[in-house]
Formats: sequence, C-alpha cells, structure tokens
Amino acid sequence: MTRASGVDPAVCRACSGRWPDAADRIAALGESAVYLHDDQFFAGWSVLVLRRHATELFELAPDERARLMDEVSDVARALQLAFNPRKLNYALFGNLVPHVHWHVIPRLGSDPAPLESVFAVSHEPVRLAESERSDRIARIRRHLVR
Amino acid sequence: MTRASGVDPAVCRACSGRWPDAADRIAALGESAVYLHDDQFFAGWSVLVLRRHATELFELAPDERARLMDEVSDVARALQLAFNPRKLNYALFGNLVPHVHWHVIPRLGSDPAPLESVFAVSHEPVRLAESERSDRIARIRRHLVR
Repeated sequence: MTRASGVDPAVCRACSGRWPDAADRIAALGESAVYLHDDQFFAGWSVLVLRRHATELFELAPDERARLMDEVSDVARALQLAFNPRKLNYALFGNLVPHVHWHVIPRLGSDPAPLESVFAVSHEPVRLAESERSDRIARIRRHLVR
Repeated sequence: MTRASGVDPAVCRACSGRWPDAADRIAALGESAVYLHDDQFFAGWSVLVLRRHATELFELAPDERARLMDEVSDVARALQLAFNPRKLNYALFGNLVPHVHWHVIPRLGSDPAPLESVFAVSHEPVRLAESERSDRIARIRRHLVR
C-alpha cells in the first residue's frame, strides 16, 4: 500500500481489514469489493470499497476510475433488480473513513422519507439476524453476475 | 430528449431549464454543466448536471459514464485547489429531481460538523450577494481549466 493524501494505510480501517466485516462481503469485484451495510434500516444498503488506498476520485487513474464506476453501476443495477426501488442513491464521503468507498442505497416505495437524503433520516439502526443477513447478501449476489 | 425510467423530460426541472439557474453556471463540460449550488453554507458546494436525461448510472453507456465521472473528478480537483478542504464529498441522489446530477462538496477545516454528511447538518441556507457569488464562481472556474 502506498501513502496518499496524508493518510497512513497502516492506520486506515479499510486497509487494515478492520472494516467492513468480511462476513458481510457480497462479492469481490475488479477494483473494489462490495459489502452489505451493517445498518439495514434502508433495505439493501451496500458499500463498495476500493481495494487500494486513495481518498479522492482525482487520485485515481482515468481507467481505474472508469472501472470503479462501472462496478458502482453494476451494484446499483443489481440492487434495482433485487429490490425494485423508486430511486437509487450514491454517495462517496469519507469524512469518518477517508478511504474511497461508495454507499449505494435503494430507496423503496415503502421509504419513510423518500425525498430526503438517508443521512438526514433519524432512525434506530436495523441489525439483521445472521440468517436474514445471509439471505439478503445472496439475493444481491444473484443479480450481480455480469 | 428521450424518455427514460418513466420520467418525462418535458416535466423534468433539469431538462426544461427551470433548474439550476443559468446565472449560477460555472462551466459547460462535455457530458454535463456545473453550477454553484444556491445554498453556500458549505462554501464551494457545486452541482454537476448531466446534459441529457437519465436517472441512474446504469442507464449511461460505459464511455459516457467514464467521461461524466472524469468531469466530476475535475470539478472535485478544482474545488480542492480553490478551497483546500480536508475532504471532498460526492453524492448523486435524485430523490427530488430524478435527473442525474452530482453534488460535489468541499468540507473545509472550519466545517461545523466535519464527520457528518452535509445532509444531516441543520442550517439556515446561505444565499450570497450577487458580487460574492460571481467571485466564488470565478474562483472555481479558474481552477477548472484542464
């Protein structure tokens, strides 16, 4: 791992394997791996984590960025097929973990606040039981075959 | 304009030119145009709007998506140079206006809630006076030359 943007990969939660939990992995993709988000209040919320350390989109080579965004797009399509949302949301923040990772969030017809950002919706996190979690991961994985 | 995802471009605020305000345009790019967001509470917040109508990333051709993301990356770099933020944030929601548009938001050292999503930070919108607004647009534009 190389140092980028003043962040030491040795202390980066994503680079050190402390986050996300390997048990939540949906699939390994080319430039990234995709995980089920631990809070499933918004059903299907997934997180796509870049394999190497970088903090901003402009640190990536153009072809690397294109491949990463194809993977984000593929995950979004899989979530569309698996959950039939009215809209997908995509966000790259890195305020807490400054390692490129994309939140991809299906907004279902049953969404409690369909016009709001999920980040503005106050709620108790929903932690699924292990069997429900495995089912949800399998459901997304089935649609992720390219 | 073609119809996509059940949204009629004739009633789309972005396609009809009702939003964003042309006076806020920073630059016309290849696949998109970039505007200064009307609320400048987070200084430099910019919005990049796809020229054609589409609602999801997976509706774009791979090369079109790659060019769009290069433009998002270029805007982010310009904001980095213009404002020296500690982090950039990127979001594509479309919950209110289901036409592909990217929020690119510099998070400055003076940010009141640096670990939060901007969408979770309750605040009074900051509408700049016309001259301040023009200055801010010019400042970003200067750094956007590829």
